[in-house]
Amino acid sequence: MDKSRQDELLKLAHRLADTARQETLRYFRGGGLETSNKLEDGFDPVTVADRAAERVMRDLIEAERPDDGILGEELGNKASTSGLTWVLDPIDGTRGYISGTPTWGTLIALHDGAEVIMGMIDQPYIGERFIGGFGQATFTGPHGGNVLATSRVENLSEAKVFSTYPEVGTLADAKAFGAVASKCQLTRFGMDCYAYALLAAGQIDLVIEAGLQPYDIQGPIGVIEAAGGIVTDWTGGPADQGGRALAAATPELHAQALAILSTHV
Amino acid sequence: MDKSRQDELLKLAHRLADTARQETLRYFRGGGLETSNKLEDGFDPVTVADRAAERVMRDLIEAERPDDGILGEELGNKASTSGLTWVLDPIDGTRGYISGTPTWGTLIALHDGAEVIMGMIDQPYIGERFIGGFGQATFTGPHGGNVLATSRVENLSEAKVFSTYPEVGTLADAKAFGAVASKCQLTRFGMDCYAYALLAAGQIDLVIEAGLQPYDIQGPIGVIEAAGGIVTDWTGGPADQGGRALAAATPELHAQALAILSTHV
Repeated sequence: MDKSRQDELLKLAHRLADTARQETLRYFRGGGLETSNKLEDGFDPVTVADRAAERVMRDLIEAERPDDGILGEELGNKASTSGLTWVLDPIDGTRGYISGTPTWGTLIALHDGAEVIMGMIDQPYIGERFIGGFGQATFTGPHGGNVLATSRVENLSEAKVFSTYPEVGTLADAKAFGAVASKCQLTRFGMDCYAYALLAAGQIDLVIEAGLQPYDIQGPIGVIEAAGGIVTDWTGGPADQGGRALAAATPELHAQALAILSTHV
Repeated sequence: MDKSRQDELLKLAHRLADTARQETLRYFRGGGLETSNKLEDGFDPVTVADRAAERVMRDLIEAERPDDGILGEELGNKASTSGLTWVLDPIDGTRGYISGTPTWGTLIALHDGAEVIMGMIDQPYIGERFIGGFGQATFTGPHGGNVLATSRVENLSEAKVFSTYPEVGTLADAKAFGAVASKCQLTRFGMDCYAYALLAAGQIDLVIEAGLQPYDIQGPIGVIEAAGGIVTDWTGGPADQGGRALAAATPELHAQALAILSTHV
């Protein structure tokens, strides 16, 4: 793909995230309204925000690139005739969203039918955006921006490992995660998709999750791979279709975690 | 205490947090330097940042209010001759800090010898500050500010409960936490002191922790009480000397959680 087409796709990804931000922030932390009243009225702010954010992104894609496919969490699948598909999760981390934690994000990926070629993790409340693809990986945030590069940690004993919930997934998933985590320097929970952004930024070294949908992991795959990391499933195969994911800062660390996880699959 | 003296103390609290921010942000996420090299050199960024931030806050207090006491996490205790003591935790949530998560905070409290009369939770990376005392509770953040008010949730079944680690503290502490959490709508981990800020802001309803020091909890006590919430230990007594803490949005919710926790003490 030539550079001008890449730039056009990156520019559209930023516009998608910009337009989604308005919708997700409108309802985050109750907006101007009283959240408990909303719930009493059967009005679920996260569902409304999720759908509104996906709607505005889909409208923009359909206007700008009508031949591209769209796979969205809330509003389903539109087939691609261009070969490219936008994969959208307007609010990844809905439990974080309803708890007011700035750990949820808008995930945007571009898939070419074989693999993820670009990904974005956007955190609207903090105002941070992590994007990777076409040979570059960068972030912008409240204190400036920089290139993204994963850490150089090669051993579990020096690694910081994250997962969203201690339960991870099934009981077997939790056991497998625990087998890796017990060898790591530090284990933390509760970061939703923000953990993948921290991995891409070199702040943590491993993220291990299960029970994922394609739209939960394709944005992170694009960012992390562009930053020098590796994302696979727990057998070492592609993770872009969801399920169980292992994201690592280095090939060495990935191999050590995979050796443990693969015995639990 | 008259209004002008209260305003002077609030103003100093803001200046303390402002000056601490420069030190904590200087080292957060590796600053401009390569974190792994720092560690290889035996240079621990969080320890350096912690001490530097406490140093600048102590210097300011000693210059402005030499008769006030100071209790700091890093640099110890200075006795009060005014009756007031500043209680400082320059970086609460050091594991969050070294992982790059914006969940750590600078905690500042003012204690009059009997109780906490003002508290602050400051999150420098996001740029959010939560302050309570002298009849007011407010926050400022990247999208503006507002008054703080805890939620009106009265039943565990509707409550969102947070703790920093699934382990909570001892095995008995974890069992007690689990007994409460199993009755709640949602359980999340990993927020460090930011969970107390979310409680004061009405976003979550319960925070339950153990193994705390006085400087870990006095800032949150000041903010949460001013926002309408309740903080005690697990027997219903004062929590300002640390140990086990139960913070709740309403008296009804506090009573329900306390009834369970107190059977585990």
